[in-house]
Amino acid sequence: MKLQPLGGRVLLKVIESEKKKSPGGIVLPDSAKTEKALRGTVLAVGSDEKVEVKKGDVVLVPRYGGTELEQDQERLLIVKASDILAVVKKK
Amino acid sequence: MKLQPLGGRVLLKVIESEKKKSPGGIVLPDSAKTEKALRGTVLAVGSDEKVEVKKGDVVLVPRYGGTELEQDQERLLIVKASDILAVVKKK
Amino acid sequence: MKLQPLGGRVLLKVIESEKKKSPGGIVLPDSAKTEKALRGTVLAVGSDEKVEVKKGDVVLVPRYGGTELEQDQERLLIVKASDILAVVKKK
Amino acid sequence: MKLQPLGGRVLLKVIESEKKKSPGGIVLPDSAKTEKALRGTVLAVGSDEKVEVKKGDVVLVPRYGGTELEQDQERLLIVKASDILAVVKKK
Amino acid sequence: MKLQPLGGRVLLKVIESEKKKSPGGIVLPDSAKTEKALRGTVLAVGSDEKVEVKKGDVVLVPRYGGTELEQDQERLLIVKASDILAVVKKK
Amino acid sequence: MKLQPLGGRVLLKVIESEKKKSPGGIVLPDSAKTEKALRGTVLAVGSDEKVEVKKGDVVLVPRYGGTELEQDQERLLIVKASDILAVVKKK
Amino acid sequence: MKLQPLGGRVLLKVIESEKKKSPGGIVLPDSAKTEKALRGTVLAVGSDEKVEVKKGDVVLVPRYGGTELEQDQERLLIVKASDILAVVKKK
Repeated sequence: MKLQPLGGRVLLKVIESEKKKSPGGIVLPDSAKTEKALRGTVLAVGSDEKVEVKKGDVVLVPRYGGTELEQDQERLLIVKASDILAVVKKK
Repeated sequence: MKLQPLGGRVLLKVIESEKKKSPGGIVLPDSAKTEKALRGTVLAVGSDEKVEVKKGDVVLVPRYGGTELEQDQERLLIVKASDILAVVKKK
Repeated sequence: MKLQPLGGRVLLKVIESEKKKSPGGIVLPDSAKTEKALRGTVLAVGSDEKVEVKKGDVVLVPRYGGTELEQDQERLLIVKASDILAVVKKK
Repeated sequence: MKLQPLGGRVLLKVIESEKKKSPGGIVLPDSAKTEKALRGTVLAVGSDEKVEVKKGDVVLVPRYGGTELEQDQERLLIVKASDILAVVKKK
Repeated sequence: MKLQPLGGRVLLKVIESEKKKSPGGIVLPDSAKTEKALRGTVLAVGSDEKVEVKKGDVVLVPRYGGTELEQDQERLLIVKASDILAVVKKK
Repeated sequence: MKLQPLGGRVLLKVIESEKKKSPGGIVLPDSAKTEKALRGTVLAVGSDEKVEVKKGDVVLVPRYGGTELEQDQERLLIVKASDILAVVKKK
Repeated sequence: MKLQPLGGRVLLKVIESEKKKSPGGIVLPDSAKTEKALRGTVLAVGSDEKVEVKKGDVVLVPRYGGTELEQDQERLLIVKASDILAVVKKK
């Protein structure tokens, strides 16, 4: 199943955040309380001219937004491009 | 009964998702919790010029949206075209 | 009492759905849970130029919308034309 | 006190519905549950050019809308003209 | 303190309604349940060109709207001009 | 800390209302129930051209609106200029 | 991870407010009840032409708004530029 988002929407592959280590080295599970955003890689963009991101960009989106899908064990997310908070640049 | 959707609406035939198999082969019922979208085949589109899909397209829509109908044991759905998330392309 | 709807409104005569039969032939009452739309015949349309339906059309509207009236034992419904989901075509 | 409604508003005199008779001839009180609209006679219209009704018209408005007033034992109602559902034509 | 309302706002002096008399002559207190509007005299109007009322007009406004002030034992009310229901004309 | 409000915002210094005296001379605390507005002195206005007030004006704003700040024991308030009810003129 | 905010958004580094001292010298924790705004330093601005702030500006934003992130023990905040209340000027 290959998806082509419509209008001002963008299809993302969610990037699972690495487990955090507490100061003492204990692995803590990712907490929704402390992280209010998700990172994702842009897989496809809709036909809307105003979309500022392109395929391959890594972006930051609000954690509770968009529609989540699961495909071949991967978490996909369809969001409105206008809800994308920021592009993650390589340092 | 043949339906012609009005304005920016689209008539879909819902595609029931196949039962999922757990790793051990047990058939699991479709869970509304893990699947927040429905697939449907476009049966007819309204007269609005902005509609991006056409008859025969398979599309993805949010699970809780639109108006559901039942006809001859088939689940139909009338949704606003602007609520369609994506077109499912053949690989 | 003859009604002329105003603006973008449409006056409908509700078409009561036939009682359903269960597979074993038992008559089941119409259930609001399984039917989220009503059928109606257009009796009159308002003066708004954008109204896509005309007198005599059979249309589908969301079950909970518009203002219901009763006249001479008939259920009437005044709805906004933009809320009409679809026109029912003769096969 | 004579009232001149402002903008797109209309002043109505509410027409009390006649008591209903049940099939056996028993007078039933008017029930808000079965009647979701009120009839009124237009007493005055505001200065807005789009108002489609005129003084003397009998109109149908949603029961719970507008601002009710009482004057000399009469029920008056000030509603937005855009909320008027229909004009009641003489047969 | 003299107030000049801004934009599309109007400053009113609330006119307390006279106590009502029941048929038997007993004075009944003003009841918020039966009276959903207040009368007021326009003291000043804002700079917005669309304001249809002028200083000295007696107007009708919804009872629960605007911002109430008290000055020298008088009830003042600042309302949006677009919320004024009607002008009270002298008979 | 000196603040320059942005857009259509205005920075106010809240004017604490004098304690009220009851007819018998007893000082009553300011009551939020009877006073639904606050007075403030305009300290700075944003860059929006539509702002009708200027530095030094005493204005009336709804009591529950804007963002309150405290600086050097003074209560400051940042409000949208369009929320200012009236300018207090000197008699 | 370097972030480029999109559209009308701005990336801020939150400036933690200094602990307050009560009159007797006791350090009181920052209280959300008395402080309804946060200060932040602008790290990056989106591509929207209307953004009135620039990199390096210290700004005031409502405490509960935007999306919070944590990076290298620093609190970051992505807010809409139109939600920024004021720029903090150096005295």
